[in-house]
Amino acid sequence: MAKKYTTREEDYSKWYNEIVSRADLAENSEVRGCMVIKPYGYAIWERMKEVLDKKFKETGHSNAYFPIFIPKSLFEAEEKNAEGFAKECAVVTHHRLIDDPNNKGKLIVDPKAKLEEELIVRPTSEAIIWSTYKKWVQSYRDLPILINQWANVVRWEMRTRIFLRTAEFLWQEGHTAHATKQEALDEAAQMNQVYAEFAEKFMAMPVVQGLKSESERFAGADETYCIEAMMQDGKALQAGTSHFLGQNFSKAFDVKFATKDGKQEHVWATSWGVSTRLMGALIMTHSDDDGLVLPPEIAPIQVAAIPIYKTDEELEQITVLMKELELKFKAKGISFKYDDDDNRRPGWKFAEYESKGVPVRLAMGPRDLESGKIEVARRDNKTKEIQDFEGVVDYVENLLKDIQNNLYNRALEFRTNNTQEVDSYDDFKVKIKSDGGFFLAHWDGTSETEELIKQQTKATIRCIPLDRKQEEGKCMVTGKKSEGRVIFAKAY
Amino acid sequence: MAKKYTTREEDYSKWYNEIVSRADLAENSEVRGCMVIKPYGYAIWERMKEVLDKKFKETGHSNAYFPIFIPKSLFEAEEKNAEGFAKECAVVTHHRLIDDPNNKGKLIVDPKAKLEEELIVRPTSEAIIWSTYKKWVQSYRDLPILINQWANVVRWEMRTRIFLRTAEFLWQEGHTAHATKQEALDEAAQMNQVYAEFAEKFMAMPVVQGLKSESERFAGADETYCIEAMMQDGKALQAGTSHFLGQNFSKAFDVKFATKDGKQEHVWATSWGVSTRLMGALIMTHSDDDGLVLPPEIAPIQVAAIPIYKTDEELEQITVLMKELELKFKAKGISFKYDDDDNRRPGWKFAEYESKGVPVRLAMGPRDLESGKIEVARRDNKTKEIQDFEGVVDYVENLLKDIQNNLYNRALEFRTNNTQEVDSYDDFKVKIKSDGGFFLAHWDGTSETEELIKQQTKATIRCIPLDRKQEEGKCMVTGKKSEGRVIFAKAY
Repeated sequence: MAKKYTTREEDYSKWYNEIVSRADLAENSEVRGCMVIKPYGYAIWERMKEVLDKKFKETGHSNAYFPIFIPKSLFEAEEKNAEGFAKECAVVTHHRLIDDPNNKGKLIVDPKAKLEEELIVRPTSEAIIWSTYKKWVQSYRDLPILINQWANVVRWEMRTRIFLRTAEFLWQEGHTAHATKQEALDEAAQMNQVYAEFAEKFMAMPVVQGLKSESERFAGADETYCIEAMMQDGKALQAGTSHFLGQNFSKAFDVKFATKDGKQEHVWATSWGVSTRLMGALIMTHSDDDGLVLPPEIAPIQVAAIPIYKTDEELEQITVLMKELELKFKAKGISFKYDDDDNRRPGWKFAEYESKGVPVRLAMGPRDLESGKIEVARRDNKTKEIQDFEGVVDYVENLLKDIQNNLYNRALEFRTNNTQEVDSYDDFKVKIKSDGGFFLAHWDGTSETEELIKQQTKATIRCIPLDRKQEEGKCMVTGKKSEGRVIFAKAY
Repeated sequence: MAKKYTTREEDYSKWYNEIVSRADLAENSEVRGCMVIKPYGYAIWERMKEVLDKKFKETGHSNAYFPIFIPKSLFEAEEKNAEGFAKECAVVTHHRLIDDPNNKGKLIVDPKAKLEEELIVRPTSEAIIWSTYKKWVQSYRDLPILINQWANVVRWEMRTRIFLRTAEFLWQEGHTAHATKQEALDEAAQMNQVYAEFAEKFMAMPVVQGLKSESERFAGADETYCIEAMMQDGKALQAGTSHFLGQNFSKAFDVKFATKDGKQEHVWATSWGVSTRLMGALIMTHSDDDGLVLPPEIAPIQVAAIPIYKTDEELEQITVLMKELELKFKAKGISFKYDDDDNRRPGWKFAEYESKGVPVRLAMGPRDLESGKIEVARRDNKTKEIQDFEGVVDYVENLLKDIQNNLYNRALEFRTNNTQEVDSYDDFKVKIKSDGGFFLAHWDGTSETEELIKQQTKATIRCIPLDRKQEEGKCMVTGKKSEGRVIFAKAY
């Protein structure tokens, strides 16, 4: 019998780490704060990339690649706009190692190989990209520029957690340039919508689309769209952001274009990104006390099949049938793994695929052979049933859709059950401790009030929902006028 | 009329740079030695990745991701095996920037944020990966490990050239671990074969598969397989390498496994990689004095179509037909671009698609409309013909195959014409200057002779071809015994 997981109830954070480790998703490396993404975890990320990349291309974007290093001086130009931007970053100061003359077999940094100007490992690429766009843009004919980049970035985080906050992480960053303000605003909204659809349709993760308050906004942005999801401990997780950057970067890097009328104007900009943080969101949305649970649309293995046998002859008979299934699943584009590894026992395999969140697990033994049956187990609700072998492929195809819907609905129900309106600040202070979840409350729109609430409760404004009801109300703290409720929560 | 290119004859190196720039493939960035890969160049690289990644997976490999940084101490462990390994690398020494107290708006490195141990931006990942594999491998059951990584790497090159030698470049690196020597040897040979097939079938670039001599081998390898291509200036370009690493890394990082008999043994290893250098190889294999030439299998746009019109009505009529073509090409999986941009004239577009190496260019004007014809131009040999509009899709489909074959055969013929056997060193010294190309010569197998030839002629041994004739011969320099000819050439 496989070792039990720590339950969410017992220790949520330990539970998370155990899922990551036992599903073979990732592990800490020998470099502080940097993770190794293992093949199974990477396969999930690859699937996310595939779906998103297709969507980016359908909406007119192309991929490109910009340097990993940003000269310090470009960082300074950006700083003017983005004073709040983190300066915790990896700084390259030298370009050579030499043998240590005093210690054989050891290496030291060559003091003669000091760089004239330090290079920063990119924490995000606005600076290097906008200094490049300056060369690309002369006239309205050169616009829009619709570029995305898949890349690694580094932010020197003090407290790290696999997928959720790591020094190095993988992401995509879109950087677009437009002739008009409206076009840039539309682009930012469109890409947030792309993220929301991806989260809901593929990750089966309900999200709230909204705008960030000024203090939660990206420092270089005039407006930040976001998608916010609720994790099973009731905390919010920001799963993606899309920024309307106004003319901040085009002014910092002096990027102008000639309009049709021959006037010189600054370009309008957006940037938008999601990262390997989505892996953390995926884990914490669906997994249970028996391990990872994956929605079929994102699962690298959608169906795993295990033979149960004593004799070689039994194995052979089962294998013939399984190979038949394999072809049929393949024809339907369903990923199927027949695991006939003789080094592992069926019980071990059952536990393994459960830990790895494989949506459907099949099993077939000698009795099933005789009766023309097969066992079908679903990971989401842990039910099992015996099905006719004949027609099982169609059955599983429908079951996968069912599981996808069920996971979404379950998460949505959880969010609904853990979202409440609150009108009194006293109430709020009690409930944010006792209940967790999302709180819909009126707020007077000032950073001061927001900061006060954060200081006193650790809750922040996650977003101003795009689809919120317009209702007159009074700020729960100051009693000043408010036009609608915003979402408060503790957050990752 | 578009500006003429510098010809290969006039200045090969300038010609190369003009192709890269005018086809919009890439450009130098503000970071010394680092390039920006532009959308059109990146689309070619994406296509290369797509084909290779599929092949890696078909041969049983999975992708994963390892940290960009390598602690200096791991580098030292590797050094023991790989003393020849370049120490020109980017060294991260600090993790914070702060405002310069003496210079408002400027940033300085925070002296308090010095790292205890320097981090090296990976020049290749053997060290970090083998220190990780140590944790993954206990028993024969954990083997083989068949992992690939798509990543950026940094080597502080002094003289850089876009795609061919850059400080940062993109690549894939496979790192495998095996229980037996034979399995690792087979893996290294297999992956070199994968590279050769990719180069020949997709890039239409003939390559010689061979083994490196000891002095040209990767410092940590016991044997290095490679594929070598001939560029149009007669120089060789190493397009991919696959290393049999023996037990060098498993010993450096103490990676042992328990055999079925319960013995402890060191693991056997391989690593293999190709990089954005392939882009340089592609350019220099096929392009001509009118710009880039792309083989259809790698071209992001296989067919471009241009309307020629004076009135809106003409444009409309042409557009209806072109939309018809678009659907038909799409159904065949052929990438088609209809360029009806009203801001550019047809002549400009013809030059543009020629510069970008689009294999087939269609054009249709009012007279073609009347007569039911369409102009079909092929980029490889610059011929044009008028075809019936009816059936043009099938015609172009075959034409693309024809172009793919023609490019391969042309390159093969070029290589054949520029490969010669030579038996006297005096002859060799004259011809390596006058003729260039590949020289098949006998060599006594010693590094001393190889070094002498390199000093005197700048030619190196590109490889010992796998399929060479076994023939008794005498080294052209020392007269000592040789068992077959090796390839000498000047190289990129």
